[in-house]
Amino acid sequence: MDNKYISLAHGNGGRFMRELIEQVFAKKFANGNIDVQADAVKIFPPAGELMVSTDGFIVQPLFFPGGNIGSLAVHGTTNDLAVSGAVPLYLTLSAFIEEGMAIAELEIIVDSMANAASDIGVKIVAGDTKVLNRGEGGGVYFATSGVGVKDPRLQIGLNQIQDGDKIVVSGSLGDHGICVMLARQQFGLSGDLKSDSASVLNLAKIAYQQKGVRFMRDPTRGGLVSVCHEIAQATHFNVRLQQSSIPIKDEVNSVCEMLGYDPLYLACEGRIVAIVQADQADQLMSKWQQISNGQDACVVGEIEQGKGRVILHTELGGERLLEELEDDPLPRIC
Amino acid sequence: MDNKYISLAHGNGGRFMRELIEQVFAKKFANGNIDVQADAVKIFPPAGELMVSTDGFIVQPLFFPGGNIGSLAVHGTTNDLAVSGAVPLYLTLSAFIEEGMAIAELEIIVDSMANAASDIGVKIVAGDTKVLNRGEGGGVYFATSGVGVKDPRLQIGLNQIQDGDKIVVSGSLGDHGICVMLARQQFGLSGDLKSDSASVLNLAKIAYQQKGVRFMRDPTRGGLVSVCHEIAQATHFNVRLQQSSIPIKDEVNSVCEMLGYDPLYLACEGRIVAIVQADQADQLMSKWQQISNGQDACVVGEIEQGKGRVILHTELGGERLLEELEDDPLPRIC
Repeated sequence: MDNKYISLAHGNGGRFMRELIEQVFAKKFANGNIDVQADAVKIFPPAGELMVSTDGFIVQPLFFPGGNIGSLAVHGTTNDLAVSGAVPLYLTLSAFIEEGMAIAELEIIVDSMANAASDIGVKIVAGDTKVLNRGEGGGVYFATSGVGVKDPRLQIGLNQIQDGDKIVVSGSLGDHGICVMLARQQFGLSGDLKSDSASVLNLAKIAYQQKGVRFMRDPTRGGLVSVCHEIAQATHFNVRLQQSSIPIKDEVNSVCEMLGYDPLYLACEGRIVAIVQADQADQLMSKWQQISNGQDACVVGEIEQGKGRVILHTELGGERLLEELEDDPLPRIC
Repeated sequence: MDNKYISLAHGNGGRFMRELIEQVFAKKFANGNIDVQADAVKIFPPAGELMVSTDGFIVQPLFFPGGNIGSLAVHGTTNDLAVSGAVPLYLTLSAFIEEGMAIAELEIIVDSMANAASDIGVKIVAGDTKVLNRGEGGGVYFATSGVGVKDPRLQIGLNQIQDGDKIVVSGSLGDHGICVMLARQQFGLSGDLKSDSASVLNLAKIAYQQKGVRFMRDPTRGGLVSVCHEIAQATHFNVRLQQSSIPIKDEVNSVCEMLGYDPLYLACEGRIVAIVQADQADQLMSKWQQISNGQDACVVGEIEQGKGRVILHTELGGERLLEELEDDPLPRIC
C-alpha cells in the first residue's frame, strides 16, 4: 500500500482501490469463494429454505470493550438469520470508509470481521468499498447482507405464538448499550463492563432442537421492550414481563439509575428473546444455561390474552405499562 | 409520520423507526416477500447457479439529470449481476440516513428505487435503516445486495477471453460521470447531458443469447480503461482500443477538454463492455443497436498477445499507453 491513510483515490476504481481491496479485505477474508475481480460471485447453499437479511452498522466509537464495528457487523446480520431459523452461510460487505482513516485501524477492524466470520463458519464472498469525504463518515460504516439456509421443518414465526407461551431470554440485558455509552466517555463514567456482542448461532441451534419454540428475536435497538411490542402488535396478545426475573447486571442497573435510562429498552448484540410453549420453557432455559453465553438465561414473562399491551409486573407487586420507545436515549450503538 | 425531517429517533428501533419503515419503505416496495417484522426473509429463486453481489452508493448530489441515488442503487447492484450472467431477482437495502433529511425528499428517492426495481422485475425483500448524526451522512447512503440466478450453460468470465477477441461497448462513455459533475455546479458549468444510469439487463439478456460472448463488465468507477486493466492483468494479453471508434458525446468531450479529464476513465452506470469472439462481435453490436439503450453500440478494440498493457491507437495513427487510474478526478459519482 502506498500510504497509511485512506484517500478519496481509494474509492475511485483505480489502482489504490484495487490494492486496498486485495491487501486489506480479500487477504483477510481469504476463502474459496472470494473473487476480487468479479462483479458477482457464485454461492453454493445446500438444500433448504433460502433466507436473506441485511443490516447497517454505524456504532460510535468504532472500538468498545468486547468488540468493534467489524465483529459487530458480522454478528448483527448472522444473528438476524440465526433467530429466523436459518444457519448463516454467506455474507456480502459494503464498506463506507472516511477519507483520513488510518489503514492500520481499518485492518484491525477487518481482522475482527474475518475472525468473527470464521468462528461462525460464514464466508464473506462479495464486497464493495466507497470512500466518504473527511468529516462525512464517522470513520467507517458497514452494511452486511447474509444468506442462510433454514430447515423447512422448523416452524418459527410471530404467527406461531400462543396464549400462555413463556418468554425466555438468553442472558443479561443492556450490556452492549451501556458498554458503548461508557466507551464514549461523554458522561465521564467508566467501568469494566464488556459488550455482549457475539454470535447467537450456538444458542439458536439449541433452540432449533427444542420442542415448543415458537419465535425468536435478538433484542438489538430498542431492547427487550421493542421485541415485546412487535409481538404484541402482531398477535394482539398482551406481553407480561416479571421485573424480578429479568437478568440485568449491577453495573448496567447503576448506570441506568444514574442517567435515567431504562435497561429494558437498551440494546443487546448477543442475546436471544425466545417465545416458548409454557411446558418447554424451563428446558430451553436449562440447556442455554449450560453454555457460556447462555449461563444467565431466564424465563422472564408470558404471553396472555389482552389488547396488545406490554406490561411490567414490578418487583413491588404493581403493574406498569411499557410504552413503545419514542426518543433515542443512546443513538449510534450499532 | 409525526414530523417532516429525519431525527435520531428514526433510527432507534422504536415507534418512529417502525413508522418510517412501514410508511416510506415497505409501502413503496410492497411485494409478497417483504415482511417488515422479520429479521430475515425467505426467498424462492428458481433452479440455476445462485449469484450474489453488493454495492454502496454515496453519490453527490443525491439527484442528477436522469436519476438519483435511489434508482442508481438498484441499477448498480442489479447491473453487476446482469453482466455476470445472472438474472437479478432479489435485493436487500441498507439505508444510512442523515439526521435532518426531509422525509419528502427521502420518499422521492425511495419511489425511484421502487420503480427501478419493478421495471427490472427484482423484489426488494429485506432492509435496514440507520440514522447518522447531522453532518455525518451526506443526506443518505445506500448499500444494496442482490441475489440472481445464472443459467449454468452460460460460460462467461475473465478466463474465457482469447487472443483476437473484440471489445464491444453498448453506448457512449462518461455520460454519468460528467452529468453528476455538472449537477454539482462547482465549475459554474451546466448542460443538457443526462446520466446513462439505467438497467443493462435487456442488453445483457441479448448477450446471453449471442454466440461467442466471453466476458462482460459494466464500466463504472474508473471507466472503460479500468475494465481494460482488469482484463489485461487477469489475462496478460494486451488490450488495444481504437480511439476513433469509441462513442463519446460531444458535450462529454467538451467538458473533458475544458477541465482536463480523460473520458476513457469516466464512470458509466448503464453501459456494458463485452469481450466477444472476433467473428461474432458485429452481430452483438447490431443486436444492441436495435434497442434504445444500445443504439450507440460500437466495436472499440481488440485483445492481442502482449504483456498486459492497455494501448490506445489514437486518431492520428499513434499509440499511447493508458495507465491504471491513480488519483480521483471525480469522487462520489456513484
